[in-house]
Order: sequence, then structure tokens, then C-alpha cells
Amino acid sequence: MSVKYVYRFSDGSGSMKDLLGGKGANLAEMTNLGLPVPRGFTVTTEACARYYGDGERIAPEIEAEVLRGLEWLERETGKRFGGEDTPLLVSVRSGARASMPGMMDTILNLGLNIGATETMARRSGNERWAWDCYRRFIQMYSDVVCEIDKKLFERHIDDMKALRGVTQDVELSAADLRELSERFRAVYHEKTGTDFPDDPREQLIGAVKAVFRSWNNERAIVYRRMNDIPGSWGTAVNVQEMVFGNLGETSGTGVAFTRNPATGEKKIFGEFLMNAQGEDVVAGIRTPQSIDMLREVMPQAYDEFTRICATLEAHYRDMQDMEFTIEDRKLFMLQTRNGKRTGTAAVKIACDLVDEGALSESQAVMMLDAKSLDELLHPQFEPAARKRAAVIGRALAASPGAASGRVAFTAEDAKHRAARGERVILVRLETSPEDIEGMAAAQGILTVRGGMTSHAAVVARGMGKCCVAGCGGIVMREDAREFELSGKTYTENDWISLDGSTGEIFAGEIATTDATLSADFARVMSWADKYRTLNVRTNADTPRDAARAREFGAEGIGLCRTEHMFFEEDRIPAIREMICADTQEERERALAKLEPMQQSDFEGIYEAMDGLPVTIRFLDPPLHEFVPTEERDIEQLSRDIGKSVADIKAIISALREANPMMGHRGCRLAVTYPEIAEMQTRAVIKAAIAFSKKHPGREIVPEIMIPLVGEPRELRYVKKIVTDTADAIIADSGMQLKYKVGTMIEIPRACLTADEIARDAEFFSFGTNDLTQMTFGFSRDDAGKFLDAYYKKKLLESDPFERLDRDGVGKLVETAVKLGRSARPDLKIGICGEHGGDPSSVEFCHMVGLDYVSCSPFRVPIARLAAAQAAIASRTDI
Amino acid sequence: MSVKYVYRFSDGSGSMKDLLGGKGANLAEMTNLGLPVPRGFTVTTEACARYYGDGERIAPEIEAEVLRGLEWLERETGKRFGGEDTPLLVSVRSGARASMPGMMDTILNLGLNIGATETMARRSGNERWAWDCYRRFIQMYSDVVCEIDKKLFERHIDDMKALRGVTQDVELSAADLRELSERFRAVYHEKTGTDFPDDPREQLIGAVKAVFRSWNNERAIVYRRMNDIPGSWGTAVNVQEMVFGNLGETSGTGVAFTRNPATGEKKIFGEFLMNAQGEDVVAGIRTPQSIDMLREVMPQAYDEFTRICATLEAHYRDMQDMEFTIEDRKLFMLQTRNGKRTGTAAVKIACDLVDEGALSESQAVMMLDAKSLDELLHPQFEPAARKRAAVIGRALAASPGAASGRVAFTAEDAKHRAARGERVILVRLETSPEDIEGMAAAQGILTVRGGMTSHAAVVARGMGKCCVAGCGGIVMREDAREFELSGKTYTENDWISLDGSTGEIFAGEIATTDATLSADFARVMSWADKYRTLNVRTNADTPRDAARAREFGAEGIGLCRTEHMFFEEDRIPAIREMICADTQEERERALAKLEPMQQSDFEGIYEAMDGLPVTIRFLDPPLHEFVPTEERDIEQLSRDIGKSVADIKAIISALREANPMMGHRGCRLAVTYPEIAEMQTRAVIKAAIAFSKKHPGREIVPEIMIPLVGEPRELRYVKKIVTDTADAIIADSGMQLKYKVGTMIEIPRACLTADEIARDAEFFSFGTNDLTQMTFGFSRDDAGKFLDAYYKKKLLESDPFERLDRDGVGKLVETAVKLGRSARPDLKIGICGEHGGDPSSVEFCHMVGLDYVSCSPFRVPIARLAAAQAAIASRTDI
Repeated sequence: MSVKYVYRFSDGSGSMKDLLGGKGANLAEMTNLGLPVPRGFTVTTEACARYYGDGERIAPEIEAEVLRGLEWLERETGKRFGGEDTPLLVSVRSGARASMPGMMDTILNLGLNIGATETMARRSGNERWAWDCYRRFIQMYSDVVCEIDKKLFERHIDDMKALRGVTQDVELSAADLRELSERFRAVYHEKTGTDFPDDPREQLIGAVKAVFRSWNNERAIVYRRMNDIPGSWGTAVNVQEMVFGNLGETSGTGVAFTRNPATGEKKIFGEFLMNAQGEDVVAGIRTPQSIDMLREVMPQAYDEFTRICATLEAHYRDMQDMEFTIEDRKLFMLQTRNGKRTGTAAVKIACDLVDEGALSESQAVMMLDAKSLDELLHPQFEPAARKRAAVIGRALAASPGAASGRVAFTAEDAKHRAARGERVILVRLETSPEDIEGMAAAQGILTVRGGMTSHAAVVARGMGKCCVAGCGGIVMREDAREFELSGKTYTENDWISLDGSTGEIFAGEIATTDATLSADFARVMSWADKYRTLNVRTNADTPRDAARAREFGAEGIGLCRTEHMFFEEDRIPAIREMICADTQEERERALAKLEPMQQSDFEGIYEAMDGLPVTIRFLDPPLHEFVPTEERDIEQLSRDIGKSVADIKAIISALREANPMMGHRGCRLAVTYPEIAEMQTRAVIKAAIAFSKKHPGREIVPEIMIPLVGEPRELRYVKKIVTDTADAIIADSGMQLKYKVGTMIEIPRACLTADEIARDAEFFSFGTNDLTQMTFGFSRDDAGKFLDAYYKKKLLESDPFERLDRDGVGKLVETAVKLGRSARPDLKIGICGEHGGDPSSVEFCHMVGLDYVSCSPFRVPIARLAAAQAAIASRTDI
Repeated sequence: MSVKYVYRFSDGSGSMKDLLGGKGANLAEMTNLGLPVPRGFTVTTEACARYYGDGERIAPEIEAEVLRGLEWLERETGKRFGGEDTPLLVSVRSGARASMPGMMDTILNLGLNIGATETMARRSGNERWAWDCYRRFIQMYSDVVCEIDKKLFERHIDDMKALRGVTQDVELSAADLRELSERFRAVYHEKTGTDFPDDPREQLIGAVKAVFRSWNNERAIVYRRMNDIPGSWGTAVNVQEMVFGNLGETSGTGVAFTRNPATGEKKIFGEFLMNAQGEDVVAGIRTPQSIDMLREVMPQAYDEFTRICATLEAHYRDMQDMEFTIEDRKLFMLQTRNGKRTGTAAVKIACDLVDEGALSESQAVMMLDAKSLDELLHPQFEPAARKRAAVIGRALAASPGAASGRVAFTAEDAKHRAARGERVILVRLETSPEDIEGMAAAQGILTVRGGMTSHAAVVARGMGKCCVAGCGGIVMREDAREFELSGKTYTENDWISLDGSTGEIFAGEIATTDATLSADFARVMSWADKYRTLNVRTNADTPRDAARAREFGAEGIGLCRTEHMFFEEDRIPAIREMICADTQEERERALAKLEPMQQSDFEGIYEAMDGLPVTIRFLDPPLHEFVPTEERDIEQLSRDIGKSVADIKAIISALREANPMMGHRGCRLAVTYPEIAEMQTRAVIKAAIAFSKKHPGREIVPEIMIPLVGEPRELRYVKKIVTDTADAIIADSGMQLKYKVGTMIEIPRACLTADEIARDAEFFSFGTNDLTQMTFGFSRDDAGKFLDAYYKKKLLESDPFERLDRDGVGKLVETAVKLGRSARPDLKIGICGEHGGDPSSVEFCHMVGLDYVSCSPFRVPIARLAAAQAAIASRTDI
């Protein structure tokens, strides 16, 4: 059976998006609804895939099928392609499964040549219009099909206007435009070495090919990566009879939404231009009028349009984004699609549609884009102010939100200036744990190096603070306290602004609006909680973060990183003393100083979580992260602990590692220094006993998590240290206290030996940051150097540190779940890597049967929604 | 059914080594052969496993079974344990499945107490002997069972000798010895708080327990790790009636081999002492006599012994290592086992046994220890000189052989001093590719950091040069040109010596003997080649290495690391120019300089391999490895390429990575700079064309290997660069040339997506060094810091960089083989990591169905033998 590559609009339907693309499917659907749609047909996405499969050529049978479609269109319209009688003109537009606005190409007025233009001029009595159509067609075709620089044509228009002494295109005469068409054809000949095609069929095939090709232009690739659209989908091509909004004052064209896409208000929202073609609305040469004015200008058309809006909303049960054209008072619908909207509008529309009875709650949950919640939770730039600002760079959108401030080059500087009331943006090559206070004081963080799981990105997300990471274009001159970007130099006196949701960097200050959580938001979240089966926990290291995460709906802590507590000013001396210890006794003495502080940290967190589960990860980072780097700090440490500066430097140098990510860290520290694990166990257990005493009758079950286990015996060894220590304390206390010991699964070998590990682990938590690093062999701090090339060359479609890689990392996760549960059927399994807050990754976690996801506080609502969507998608009963 | 934990010698057999241990099985076998063996029984290895499983206690039913064994022994011997009539004395000895000489503990004369000693004195009329037995027993028991410091007892002996004015133990009287026994019992009481046990049954159970415990003493753990013996095996315990070589001048004891263990000569070799117990032979207080003298001293016993030697050799078909005791002219055999031997002896004995008709060729192959071939291929210390030398340290046996020289602290220094005829040992914190010439010039290499796959280890093995790596005990003071080890300081004037086969470091110069390959060696290798199914290739980067590997029997090159060529003095400027290029054009200009050099390298290698397959790996290391670090070199580079010093420093700084092992390297370089892959392709293909022209009719099929692939599209992308470039050159040449494109499998994700990768890869080669790093998350350069703790705490039993980890890395290898062949059934698969020369890993490669292993030239014979052993072991027809 041969594949069908061309569908008439009347043969398709709205459910055929995969094959016809969104635009084609909706044109078919509107046609079937009896709405006024110009006739046409769609070349399928499969034809596009075939085009690439065949080495970027259109197979003869596809070409033949397109031309048969055209013959049918000629019969239907009674016009002839290139005909001298009534010429058929068509538009050729791309349309992928997912909306990719502006990413690919469109050609209007296709089918014209000199003869057809003359005919059209004669028959319409509008000679100027006819030649304007032709010269526009030559421009678009040359640009889209042959990639000839648009400027070459614009220069001729400017010359012509100068010659005629006019300033506006519309002041040029029919003869001028005919003359321009001749000059454009000459440009085309000069650049391609061939004549501009007069055969409309040749034009059409060239245009189809160009649309296919535009699927892989650079901006489309970037857009797909940002929006998780697979490159394999391909685009469809819609070929449609032209209608003209530029036939005179009874014609026009416009775009509109059935509701307000910024606020969600239920009122048609849009704009139109009389006597114009689609591109004029976008080009901004004339100022369009509000759609409300159409009621005055052309009441009949307006009434028909509002009826169509109602029909489409009722049909699609969602807010629609439409394009229309009025040709001599007759309304034509050129496109409809579910409209893009702000997070605020999305939530309001979802609630309104439920209240209107158009959607069930679960349908309302499904219609929301989980990622779009980010803008409800973080400050955003005022749209108008943002539009005026100059973009000076673009990097990874590492932590959402918007911020402006003056540049600060060190964390210390940021802290001091913020204390004086100044707003600063911290700009660093990369951040390290020493910078945390400065990061907290800054409005936003910009780094030169590092990816989506770099220190800066992870910490900023935890703080809910805007961060743009990995801007390799910055030339940093820290000594001079300045940096260069896009050819300009910025100093401490300069304001910059960051959009952490898009990764854009702006010069100057931009006004922001605060985040406000509406009642609608709470309603949507309550629906989500009804449907999801995954629990949602948070990654929080402090009582403050824990409290905030609970406000966002976290049901426990999935990852409390104990080391973050060590960096605070009153603790770091003790941890440094511990690191510099020569003997176990010295080490234990230093650890004894840390213990009460750790215990009080844990008490605070237990209080904040009020009995909800708390998973505490034992010391994980390599010790060198804690040692001082500045001469001054080394001298201070020397005085503090009574060791010589030379000795301390020798210790620091001995801690240096070639690849610290795969070095002496995680449970390897507990193996070499069991006393660290003993101290941490004491702090965890004593804090739980204190909590129990304070709140009699309230149960608390601390979960101790051993990081970086790769071999079952490692866990067994450390677990024994933990249980020996804990059991003794509990016995001494005379209280009943349960606790659990589990492990991070973050080393590939742990996944492969998960059955053995599960014999000792009471829970697993996937540390997919490290697991991704080691499965790919990508250092999260260094991969930025080559990942851009990987995206450009289509070797990777998304950042594996942002979106869990199902083909590789996912296979290891599945293996570990299967092996782990084979040994311990009731094994509780979660994820606490950064993927826990990414919707696609949450869906994967649901599919492989995890019990919970854990993410930074500000991503908890996103995870709740994504978990509900995954649950609903996999149910057959609702 | 209850498990049987105790076997009488007469109930066992030589095939029950797993259960009875080697010693127990052989005692049983000798008993069944009718040889004179004192009666006894064996407590099984399963009892030992049970002991550990039960939390280091002996279960009551095992204790009961041991005591029942004892009752049987009393009946058999007619003696009574602790009896006042004829006291039964036993020896208690450990005996594991594999021989672990001296690693575990032995107790003689067990069963004595004061009463039994008096009885024995009375009945034998040899009072001195009886009390000597008792005081020896107290000493051994206290040491082994209660871990009381031996010195506490020796001090009393010294006091007693001083009191009596004598110097030798034998000069002490019976009364002195009785007095000593009393004092020893007092020491025991003081140290343990309890009386020395008088109940022989209590003594026996204590001794059995102590032997079990000794399985996990530190030296046993180290020995097991060095010899690949699993900790789960456990040891058996042999309880045997004592016979006495110290009853007078008609008694004696000795050890002997059926052939010379150093040379393999077919002549009984050994020594004996009259009037002595076993320990005296070892202790070296008196000088033993050659076994030949026994013929004079006690001809009858000698004749019987030679008959027994013949019987045992005929029975075991291998050279035997025996212990015997003559009690009042009666010969008793206490032990036999296959004797340890030098590599030279092993090969000679294997050949002789085949010639004698005792063994088939395949049996001869199986009896050899592949690792022992190392000493045939490398210089060794003269045994006598070595014995006199002082060991000052011990680290990883990174590359076998022996070397002496004066200390050199830099590669440059090593080069210059060697050029002047001086012998030097290069001592470095770690080596880098810049050090290669200095390494080649040195006699041996000693490093402070790094493991079995560190740069120093890999390069030294490739050169066949002795290397001891990762000696963390060294305090290096490079600026002062000295290092400290074991409390002493060594400068450039000091001689040191290294044994790369044991990891020992000696002070001073030690005479060495050259490696010589005998005709026997060639014979054994020819047998191995007959049986093996795995091909054996070599890792070689230069024509010289390639030629040497062919001499050792390599059947091709499995890994030619192109980057090693770049470090030579005439190339490094061009590679640096390439790295510092700002534009693709600049980069191509620099690459054009490298191309003819690369081409001539490949021509040389093709010539050396003479048509055998050659796999060329494209550029792999991160570029920062090539840039200069010394100010002087940076200035030189600045002059060479006309870029400012500041610019060059900025480039170097930008190349720095947090975790270079997971950074911008491997095929990631070819993705970002396709022109590098193009240049390398041109060099590979043009060299092959030149070879073909020079040798008409000789086919050459270069194999291009793309490193570090983790995603199928990566390989597809780089492969297209290679094939486009290669096909154009071949078409231009007008010649027929085939070539293959394949990939390293060294990233975990590559194993998981191997089916997709195999669609483009014509061969796989496992890079198990990197695969081990990423599967474990162990940086090869940093893991040394904690691996020692892992061995001591029994979390790992062997170095995963030395012996392929079957539980984790092995699973990934199996997955990749299965997936790869599912997509491409004829996929050729090899291994080129350092594991390719390790016998256990070679066995694994055979089992999972690889086509070849590739290893450094000097390990080729080992790999050939190991491959043959794996093949023979898996065959059922021979």
C-alpha cells in the first residue's frame, strides 16, 4: 500500500496533528465545522521526514501527488495556476505538530508570473495591487527558497522612492512596482545564475522544499530544544488559495484571541488593519486597530467573527489564537490554534473553563503547561519596559525570575553593597560554596561557566533567585573589576538585568512586577493533588527553605544537604580544623564542636516540617571545597588551630584532585573517616529525640541517606557505623525512635548492583545529577564548552542535566528500580536530582513507578502539576 | 539434611579443595595413596563461612562435631587428649583453597597442660623435650589465639639465659624450661585476666576460632588482593596428631621440592634439620642441610622419601612442595602441594612434563601462571643481592621489572643525565605526556600519585619499563630536589632500586639479571596459540613498539594512540599553534603542518605491522594536556605563532577544566573541530595508499576508531566526516582501498545504546579504563587516596583498574556485546583497556565472546597464555 502524502483540508481532521501539523489539522477541522476557510491541502509531516530520509530531496511520487493536489484545487476554485484567465494564487505555509511561531517560512502570492500579474491587474481593475503582489512574491520567494539577502531588494525600493521623491511604499505607482518587479528578477538572476521561475508548478515544488528545509534552520533547532520538541517530527506544508486583505478599504486582515492572553479575561482580544496583507500587521509600518473597532468599521464581519470565536472555543474547549482576512467584506479564517498565554492567564482560563462547564477538573489540569507556573512564582519584567531594553547576551536559563542591579564581582562585595541597600547582580566565572552569602544578598546571579546543574544554578533555584549561567561570551577581567560582553565593557557602576526564565541578559535597569499567587492558582493545585500518585518533596537545607517549600505544598524533605550548613561563618572554622587534623583524636575533637550545631540545624528542620519525613544526606562534597583559598584566611586558620601556614598549605595541596567529581567524596569520606558519619548520626538522632520530647505523641522517623554508593559493601559498612551509633543513643535515651538508612543511587555501578544494595538500603533516592555526569561522562562544570556544538549539530536535543535522558540514564534508573524491588518489594524510591522539578522527567518518574520526586522549593508546584498530568495521562478511566 | 563440617583425612580426597582447603585435601589424598600421614581431620571452609555468617562465633553444632572428630582421633591413635596415660597432642593449621603461605596461623603441640607434660616427660624419658614442647605451645597459643605480643615471652627467655649465663635456647635445662612455662602462664594471666586453659578441648576450640579469624588478618587480605583470591572462600582447619622431629638425633624435619623451583631442573631440592621441629627450619637459628645429605645421614628414610616424591609427582602430575618429619627414623608426610616456582622454572617444568608424557600440551598450558611470565620478559634483581637490600617503601606494582639508578626529579634532568651515561630513576608526583622522553631515558619510574591506569603506569608498561606508582608515603620537595620516605631523605646523589613486579622500593643499588627468552618459552607459547580463540593485539603508538609487540606475537594493533605522536619535539609547536587558533582557517593551517608527520608515523606503523590490522584511535585527550606550563615555553610559543603572551595565557586558562576526564575530549573534539578529524583521516588514508603503492598486491585495511562516543548520533556525525574525507582521497587516488570506522566503548551510555551505535560502528573496542572510571565514579588519578581503606575494610578485593570488575563494568560490557551484535551480528569486538593484559580479565573477555584483546607489547605473551587457558577451561573435549 502506498503512503498518502497529501490531504485536502476536507479529508483531514483536528485529531491528525501528527500527520498534518497543527495548522493543517485545524484548517481541516474548521473546514469540517463549516467555517469560511479558503480551500487547500496539506503536504504531510511524513513527506518531510521522507525528504530528510532521501538526503534532502523530494521523491518523484511526492512531487506528483502535490501536483495532483493542485489540479484538484484548480477544479474546486475554477481558477488556473498561472492561468491567463483567472489565475490561482496560493499561500505556502509551514505547520508542525507543535506551534513554533515565526520559526519557519511562509510564501504568499505564489503562482504569479508576469502574464498572470497582467491578467490579475486587468480583471481586478487594480493594477497597482497586482504588481505589488508580484514584487512581494519575488522578494519572499527569493528569500525563502534561494536565501538571497532581503537587503538587495530593499535597496532597490529605497532607490525607487528616492527617484520619485516619496517616502512611503504606498506612494509608489503601479508602473514603479512593475519596474521594481523587473529589477527584482534581475537580482534573482544575478544571484542564482538562472531566471526567476515563471512556471507556477516549479515555484510550488521549490517552496515546499524550502519549507521542509526551514525545519532545520538554526532558530528552529534552538526553539525545539527550548521547548522539548523532537527533531524527528518534521513539519507539514499547507498550500491554500490566497485571499486578499489588501484589495481596498472593504478588505483587511487581523489576528485575535478569544480571551485575553495576558490576564485570561473572557473578552475577545486582538487587532486588525484595513487594506493590508498579513505581513503588514506584523511589520508595524501602520499601527493596527483594536479588534473592538471592527464592530464599528464592519459590523457584519465583526458579528460573524464573534460567532466563529464562540464556535471555536466550544469546539476546542480552549482559548483560541486566530488569523483572519476580510476580502471585500467577506470573512475568511486562515488559522486557529490554542493560544499561548501567560502563566496567570493560563490558570485563570483553566478555572473559568471549569466554571463554564467546558472542562472537567482533570482536563483543566492537563491543559496547563507546568513550566509556565514559574512566572507565577517569581518576579517578572514589566513587558513594556522589557521591550525597550537592549539584549546584550543570552545563556542558560538556570533559575527563573527577573532581576536588575549593579554589577558585583565578588560575593563579599555583593554582601557589603547589599547591606548598604544597593541592588546588585553577582557576576562570577563560576560560584563555589564560599559564595553562598553573596548569592543570597544579590538580586540575581550571572556566571560565565557551568551548566544547569552547576553550583550557581542549583543554589539559585533553591533560593528562588534568578540566575543566568554559562555565558561563555563574557570576557572576565576580575582584577580590573570589569567584564566585556558583545563588545562593551561593564563595571561596578553599570546596571544590568537578567531574565532567568529565558536566559537573556540586558543592559540597564528594567522595572519588575512581583510574583503573586492567586486563588485560581490554589484551586488548580488542589485539583492536581487529587489526581497525582507521586509524592512531592523538596530539597531544603535550612528551616527557612523547608518552611517555604511547605507553603508550596511539599510533603517532606527528599534531600537535606548537610554540608551546606558547614559553610556558615560560625561552622567553617570547625570543619577546617577537622580537615587539617593529623590524627583521629584531633578529628574527633573538631567534630565534637560541629555536633551541637548540626543537631540544632536538624531540630530546626524537624520543627519546620512538623513530623513530615526528612531525608538527611551525609557529607558529600570533596573536602577541598571547605578549605580556604585566600592567604589571609589560611593565616587565620593557622592561628585558630595552631598549625603552621606551610603545613596547612601542604594539607590543602594534598586535597587537590585531578577529577574531584570522581574523587574522595560521598560515602568514601565515611569509609576513610568513620568518625564523620558517627558525628552526623549523633546529631540526626539526638535532634529527633529532642523533637519527640518536645512534642510527645508526635512520631518522627529520620531518614539517613548515604551518598555515592557504588558497591553494596560500601553501604553495608557505613550503615553499620550509623546503626551502631544510633542504636546506642536510642537505648540510652530510653525512648522509642525509628529511623531509616537508605542510599543515593547516583553511580552507574549502583544501578547495576541495586539488588544487592537494596538488601541494606531501606530507601533509594536517585541522584540524577551525578548519574547523568557519569553515564554520559559529562562534567557538569565543563560540558558547556561543547554542548552548544552538540545542539547546533543536532547530536543532542535537550540538556541532559535539565531533562532526564531516557535512552541512557533512564535505562539505568529502570534497571535499578527493577533490581531494587526484586530484593526488597516495599523499597521506597524517589529522585532528588534537579530533574525532580522538570515536567518531562517527573512524567518519567511516574512511568517507572517511583514513590516521590524531590525538587527545590520553588519547583514544588510545577512538580505537583506535572505529577498530576502524568497520572491523568496514564489513566484510562477519566 | 544437616551439613557435615568435619571430615576425617580418610574420608576426603584431593578433589575436595573447595571444602577442605588445599592442605586438607592433599592430606586426604596422601592418606588415600597409603603414604605415611599422621592421622587427623579437617574442619571445612564452610564452617569458616558459617563462623563469619554467625557474627564471628562457632555454632554449637560445629563445636560438637569438632569434639566428635577428636574422640575419633583418640580412638584411632589410642592416645587421650590431655590424658595422663599417653597424651594426644595435635597441630592445628589453616589451609585455604589457594595456597597463602605464611599468611595465617599454626599452633603445634596443642593438648598439653602441666599434667600431660609431666606424663610425656616421664614416658619419653626426655624431660627437657617435654617442657620445651609446652613452653612453645604456650607461646604460640598466646600469640595466635589471644594476640599477646610475642616479645613479652622472648624477654623472659632472654632473662633466663642471662641468669644462667648461656646464649642458646638449647642450653637451657628442663628445669629452666619448666620455670619458663610457669612464667609464660603468668604473662598469659596478666594479659587476659584468666588462667591459661588447661582443658585441651577448650584449647582446641580456641585454636580453631583463631585460625578462622586469621583469614581476615591484614596481611591475608593484602595477599588475597594481590593474588585475586575472593574473601568469601574462607579457610579450613586441619587438626592432626603431632609427630616430633625434635626427639633426638634419629629425628628431624624438612621441606623439599620434587624439582628445582628456581631453574626447573629435575632433581629433588630441599633442606632438613635433625632434632628439630618445623618452626626451627624457618627460624634460621641453625643452618639446615641440603636434602642430598639425608641420603648419608639416614639412607632408609631418604630412599622412602624419594619413592614418595616419585609417587606424588606421578599422581599430581606437577612439581610438589612437601613438608616431612622423621620421628625416631620413621618418615611422616605433613603436607604436599604444587610447588611455587619462578617463571623460568614453570616453563621448563611444563615442557619437561610434556616430554616425560605426564602432561598433554593443553594440560601444560593450564598449569602455568600467566602473570609469572612477567619475570621472563623483564630484568629481575639477583635474588641474593635483593635479599640484602633494605626495603624503604611499597606501592603499586605498576609495571614489572627491576631497576636501579640515581634519583632524578624532572624528565628533562633524567634525559640529560642518561645522555651522559648515568643510570637514573625518575621520581615524580605524577607524570604527564610532557615527561615521555625522560621516562624513556630513565631505568625506572616512581610516582607519588596515581593508580594502575595512571599515565606513568600505562606508558611504562608500554615501554616495558619498571614502574612503581602511587607511593603516598613520599614527601616530595621538588624545589629542594629531595624527597623523604620512611623518615630518610633522598637527593639526586642517592641510589634507589625499584621492583615493579612487587611494588617494593629499596635504598641503594641492586644487581639485576637480564630477561632471556628460552626455547621452552617459545614452545609453550606455540601450544597456547594452538588452543586460544581470542586474537591478541597490542597497544602501540610507534613503529618500534609495534615491532617489539610482533616479536612477542601480537597479531595486530588494537590501539594506536595518535596523540602520543604529538608530544614529540618537532610536532608539539604545530599542535600548540592549532590549539591557539582563533579561526577555523588558522586551525587548518596548523593542522596542515601536522598532517605529513602523522602520515609518516602511520606509514612506519603499517610497515612494522606488515599488513596486520591496525586500529588508529583519533585524538582523545583534552587539549590542555598539550599546552605549555612553563613561562619560558609560553614565551617561545608567543614568538612562534605571533600571539601575545597574555592571549596565550588566556587560551590556556580557558582550556582548564574542573573534571577534565569528563570534559572536552575524545570525539567531542571532532564534533567541535571537525577539521582535526579530517586531517587525521587524510593522514591515515594517504599512508595506506602509500603502503599499497610500495607493496603492490598486499592488502591493508586501516581501522579508524572514534573515542568516547556516548550517543549514537555522535558517531554518525564524526563517521560522516571520516568517510567523506576518506572516500574523496581514495577516489582521487584511483586505487582500491578498504577501511573501517568503529568506536571505543568506554562511556556507560555507549553500552546502554550499543544497538544504535552498532548501526554505524563496524567494530567496537572496549576502553575499560574509562569505563571503569565512570561506572565506579573513580578518578584513576585520585582513587589512590581512598582505595587502600577500601581494601583494608574489605569493601573491594581487587583494584578494578587492574582486574575487570565483573559485577558492574562486566555487566555493561555484556550488555554492549549483546545489543551491539543484535544490530550487527558480525560486529568485531575487542578490548584495548589495560585489562587486555590481565589474565582474569582476558578470561572474562573470552567468556563474553570478544574477538580480541589488545594490551601493551610486554603483556602480549601473558594475554596469549591467558586466552589459551580460558579457551581450554571452557572446552569439554580436551
